[in-house]
Amino acid sequence: MTYIQQHTQRDDTSFTRARDRGISVGQMEVGATNSICDIKGVSVGSITLSDGAIQTGVTAIHVVDDNIFEHKCVAAGHVINGFGKSAGLLQLDELGQLETPIVLTNTLSVGTASDALVRYMLDRNPAIGETTGSVNPLVLECNDGAYLNDIRGLHVKAGDVETALTSAQDSCPQGAIGAGTGMSCYGLKGGLGSASRKFRIGDQSYHLGALTLCNMGLLDDLLVDGRKVGREIAELKKHEAEQSAELGSIIMLLITDAPLSSRQLKRICRRAGAGLARTGTQFGSGSGDIVVGVSTANRIPHYSPESGHQDCQILHEDKLDILFRAAIESTEEAIINCLFASKTTTGKHERVRHSLADYWPKLDQPQA
Amino acid sequence: MTYIQQHTQRDDTSFTRARDRGISVGQMEVGATNSICDIKGVSVGSITLSDGAIQTGVTAIHVVDDNIFEHKCVAAGHVINGFGKSAGLLQLDELGQLETPIVLTNTLSVGTASDALVRYMLDRNPAIGETTGSVNPLVLECNDGAYLNDIRGLHVKAGDVETALTSAQDSCPQGAIGAGTGMSCYGLKGGLGSASRKFRIGDQSYHLGALTLCNMGLLDDLLVDGRKVGREIAELKKHEAEQSAELGSIIMLLITDAPLSSRQLKRICRRAGAGLARTGTQFGSGSGDIVVGVSTANRIPHYSPESGHQDCQILHEDKLDILFRAAIESTEEAIINCLFASKTTTGKHERVRHSLADYWPKLDQPQA
Amino acid sequence: MTYIQQHTQRDDTSFTRARDRGISVGQMEVGATNSICDIKGVSVGSITLSDGAIQTGVTAIHVVDDNIFEHKCVAAGHVINGFGKSAGLLQLDELGQLETPIVLTNTLSVGTASDALVRYMLDRNPAIGETTGSVNPLVLECNDGAYLNDIRGLHVKAGDVETALTSAQDSCPQGAIGAGTGMSCYGLKGGLGSASRKFRIGDQSYHLGALTLCNMGLLDDLLVDGRKVGREIAELKKHEAEQSAELGSIIMLLITDAPLSSRQLKRICRRAGAGLARTGTQFGSGSGDIVVGVSTANRIPHYSPESGHQDCQILHEDKLDILFRAAIESTEEAIINCLFASKTTTGKHERVRHSLADYWPKLDQPQA
Amino acid sequence: MTYIQQHTQRDDTSFTRARDRGISVGQMEVGATNSICDIKGVSVGSITLSDGAIQTGVTAIHVVDDNIFEHKCVAAGHVINGFGKSAGLLQLDELGQLETPIVLTNTLSVGTASDALVRYMLDRNPAIGETTGSVNPLVLECNDGAYLNDIRGLHVKAGDVETALTSAQDSCPQGAIGAGTGMSCYGLKGGLGSASRKFRIGDQSYHLGALTLCNMGLLDDLLVDGRKVGREIAELKKHEAEQSAELGSIIMLLITDAPLSSRQLKRICRRAGAGLARTGTQFGSGSGDIVVGVSTANRIPHYSPESGHQDCQILHEDKLDILFRAAIESTEEAIINCLFASKTTTGKHERVRHSLADYWPKLDQPQA
Repeated sequence: MTYIQQHTQRDDTSFTRARDRGISVGQMEVGATNSICDIKGVSVGSITLSDGAIQTGVTAIHVVDDNIFEHKCVAAGHVINGFGKSAGLLQLDELGQLETPIVLTNTLSVGTASDALVRYMLDRNPAIGETTGSVNPLVLECNDGAYLNDIRGLHVKAGDVETALTSAQDSCPQGAIGAGTGMSCYGLKGGLGSASRKFRIGDQSYHLGALTLCNMGLLDDLLVDGRKVGREIAELKKHEAEQSAELGSIIMLLITDAPLSSRQLKRICRRAGAGLARTGTQFGSGSGDIVVGVSTANRIPHYSPESGHQDCQILHEDKLDILFRAAIESTEEAIINCLFASKTTTGKHERVRHSLADYWPKLDQPQA
Repeated sequence: MTYIQQHTQRDDTSFTRARDRGISVGQMEVGATNSICDIKGVSVGSITLSDGAIQTGVTAIHVVDDNIFEHKCVAAGHVINGFGKSAGLLQLDELGQLETPIVLTNTLSVGTASDALVRYMLDRNPAIGETTGSVNPLVLECNDGAYLNDIRGLHVKAGDVETALTSAQDSCPQGAIGAGTGMSCYGLKGGLGSASRKFRIGDQSYHLGALTLCNMGLLDDLLVDGRKVGREIAELKKHEAEQSAELGSIIMLLITDAPLSSRQLKRICRRAGAGLARTGTQFGSGSGDIVVGVSTANRIPHYSPESGHQDCQILHEDKLDILFRAAIESTEEAIINCLFASKTTTGKHERVRHSLADYWPKLDQPQA
Repeated sequence: MTYIQQHTQRDDTSFTRARDRGISVGQMEVGATNSICDIKGVSVGSITLSDGAIQTGVTAIHVVDDNIFEHKCVAAGHVINGFGKSAGLLQLDELGQLETPIVLTNTLSVGTASDALVRYMLDRNPAIGETTGSVNPLVLECNDGAYLNDIRGLHVKAGDVETALTSAQDSCPQGAIGAGTGMSCYGLKGGLGSASRKFRIGDQSYHLGALTLCNMGLLDDLLVDGRKVGREIAELKKHEAEQSAELGSIIMLLITDAPLSSRQLKRICRRAGAGLARTGTQFGSGSGDIVVGVSTANRIPHYSPESGHQDCQILHEDKLDILFRAAIESTEEAIINCLFASKTTTGKHERVRHSLADYWPKLDQPQA
Repeated sequence: MTYIQQHTQRDDTSFTRARDRGISVGQMEVGATNSICDIKGVSVGSITLSDGAIQTGVTAIHVVDDNIFEHKCVAAGHVINGFGKSAGLLQLDELGQLETPIVLTNTLSVGTASDALVRYMLDRNPAIGETTGSVNPLVLECNDGAYLNDIRGLHVKAGDVETALTSAQDSCPQGAIGAGTGMSCYGLKGGLGSASRKFRIGDQSYHLGALTLCNMGLLDDLLVDGRKVGREIAELKKHEAEQSAELGSIIMLLITDAPLSSRQLKRICRRAGAGLARTGTQFGSGSGDIVVGVSTANRIPHYSPESGHQDCQILHEDKLDILFRAAIESTEEAIINCLFASKTTTGKHERVRHSLADYWPKLDQPQA
């Protein structure tokens, strides 16, 4: 089928970011790639399904480059608004651990993606279900069926998930690709966005990056670094009928190499909502707003060491503020990056979502 | 294939319950069928996959007999121990609503079951994903792969889930059938169990019933109405090696026709843990112990009435104690019923789980 | 002593609000007084202790004008950051009920205020502790000792709390008075702020108002309706050393007359964080950011009616978005109102907190 | 006044425990003193106020023998039923830290006790409220006013709390003394109880102990190691009217020297409910059932080290089951110990609560 195309992220460097347009969210230093791929070991793969009414896809994130089931990562989740169908958060919260790659897709394909991710894990870990317990697949979603995608068609197949998982590279896709293909955001084209921050604690340098799958917001509410851009665009297109309720969602993934407990990560995750809020959304009732945080420090072995315990480093609580700020800035910037990177797309019922990039030149010059 | 057999519950009245052996948990009056089917509208369907190393299945519970998506039920979840992969609890908690039948199956089949339940809902609700939002499938699980079932084989198929959903009848299966086929409980054969209580508040009569999918516990810990039956059985079979860690799980489903808010239901769900505790388990780290509560009163329309609000009846907080007691008694008795009803089963690697019913006659006469 | 002065709110109409300066947060209609006193029955009393190093006080909020213990209000709490010592949230959350007036004061006076509020309730409800159970006092706090107040002196006395409780009037104090006397906010003078929104659901008109006790934020971070005012002020006073970590807190109280369950109120409370975030804070680790929501509809009798249940109206979930928006707009505007209303104050160690109102004329003309 | 007596625990070794009567809860090894004082550094002080209608008191627990504010303990809380007025749990949960001794008292004296504990901390830590932030006092409570104590009289004074705090010794009071003076439990005399377990992980030996302040339960429900003792006693005293609703509460404090994260401690706290459940209670609506867990390993400095992080040891998740079991066994045994140790007491309105120790000889010989 022609509508399936593997995303080769290297090719898609054509997208521009907020900073290319002079928009600098916050005060902190930015990582080298300004994306989650600034955290060593992170890689991302995507499948884009784009053909007429089919506008959906899958994005897979590996947070480490070795076997995460054997050496798990400290993790935490935070639910801003639980109108969502994500799978795997229950155990992630109980154990404070992530033990699989993370898969993003559309709402009604969570079952298919969970099943495919289970198979991927079984293939690579023969002990699961035999000499050890089971495995907890983490699958997060937004509803691309509210506008562009024929979500009832359930077009994502197990093979697509497998391809996304196995094609990951160490650069981060942004825009209307992979799981972001059919998403809408602030009445504009949504999708994937990323950003990162770099900071120093004691004599160590760390990164924190955000990847957001953006599918929330009403046009009127959009803020770009404080500017009421949504109302300006609404003025330009005022003849068009607008959506009146948020039916979307946003997934915010935060990854850092700083050494943290899951409790601390949860505190950091809670700050992502501040970054989200600054882009203008009202956290609508129908929007599943979910944050997952992962630290790649202090890996946890699947099997207990003989001693029964593990030595680890944990940041002092007084040092968290810089991570809070990094989480807020990265999340806000990732969302704005997404809006610029997501290209105008036509989907089911010939519906069109326009890109912020298309409107931007028509707006007044950004403030100095 | 011969190993697939549709469960016709009417046929399987051969199982005996705790009360048939003189064990009466608690003090309250029991419902007519002493099962969740005492709540009007509840029906249950099961598929049993039992052939050699394949010992698994699916059980579907409809809590009402009409379209639950159009008129949702008040619901709540409670996580005693979140080492589990159940899907759908996030939104159930946020909205306090259940909008699909409930599916029980094995841990690694949650993805398949979610996908199948989504398809079942799409078929019956053409608005989903088109003119209204998405749907939140509730799929709960235990790990039958720890002992009896070849869980890596992923033997549950979408069609099995569909059959469980469409074959429901108003009697409640108990024992090693459906989702309970391959479960283990206190080192004995586990599976499904149910019990109910009847009570009066003001001039109204209500029921609360429990359905438990039992796959937890170590033999030594088993208590039957306070009696240390586990140690007595361990004495009988002391040559056999025993499991040393809980790798199981238990799903506890509470259904009532009393009018409650989701906050109140959550309070009731928290009491299920007391019933569970009285059967002896230590709530092991590896055991996903999950409670879901549903009230069939105060149905919530999918679309808002024009007025924007709904009239409803809510029990006064001072009246909840009787529901707490009903939840505790029903849960404890459902687990004991499960143990008596679940027949000795041989599974993968020729492993055998014996039924409590087989050991019972060998124990000293129960206390008067 | 001269430093104790009862606040007569009627007198203090000298403060100006954001709207007086052309700053209109959000899009919704504002209530008649643009404060929590737009909700019928609400009254507020304050005691200000201001004398040299003593800069503290008490504010008491009655959410209804009759006996709230006899007829409780539906309520919910939400903790954005739990670095706080507020008392009473535990039971408020469990029962979804408020049964006392609400008292605001400084962090180390929570014990004194709880004790005084208990005495106030005992005096008015002879059944408490005798023929009925106990009472759950709700006392919320911020730490005014971080900069202006000699908090170690524990200057708030039981009598001050009693006076605040008994002197309440139906207008809302704003600025550096009552509990707000010694607070700091974004490196400026903080204190109390309020705002409200009016909206229609079906054929009913409702209000939602916010009262905020503001003691959080770093100067550089302050946003006023999106404008980076904090950095502009920092530029003006760049010779002065600035605080480097948030040690403050914010209490956000939301009151509405719309008919809601406590679960719905909790959802609304979660949105207050978006309003807070838009004023620029990073939700610092040391800042206790707490939200309490109260609905004055559907009062709950202390003693169960004979029937055991209560008839009530509950808004449909699809109607909550307007309340979310009202909560966000009111919270953001209440904080900005607080900053304008809080007058420059000198406290312990001759430390000074300047008012935003003093800086405002020195900034560039606000954007049109 | 004669009714105030400082408790000298050394003197009160007259109480007998469950084990003295042949009741051995669970399977694990017991610590040397079978109390929380088996954890090195723990000490306990009590004040008993017992004179006619005044039946109340204070118990203070120091979990370490040095300055806990300077070097905090990892801690966690768990709320089984939040009908309670305990103070300090909010911040304990957010930071996973305990920074004060723990004070137990009656429900309406929480304010007085918080204030006194704040003063105690200020005296010993001059930086609080001056060069560092504030302090989070932990005060836990049960309602002794439901039956024996004139709780409306607010008889606990600041000085009583101070005395309890400063008179602590390394032996654990049990019975109707200190905070337990006026408590009722299962229609019998309640109070304080303690028990402990000893266990080995890797080559290390650890302890976990429970201290319970017991004020919950209805007589009919009482189980003693599975035996329905409540019904047996009810038979003996069947002419007496019994309470029909739980208005009590229970505080369960778990202390261990095993190295744990606060997330892990929270998991352990959740198991205390299983021990509680096995004594028979229905977790009544009006009963505030609260658990606090503390680990004395991995002390956390108040001020961050220069490096910004701390090295610590954390148990592997697979090793927690033994701590779960220890928590359950200790909690159950502490409650039973409390019932045996609490002597018959007469309080307000000449009401009498009889001791289990008085009924015990009249019951049939315990089972072998």
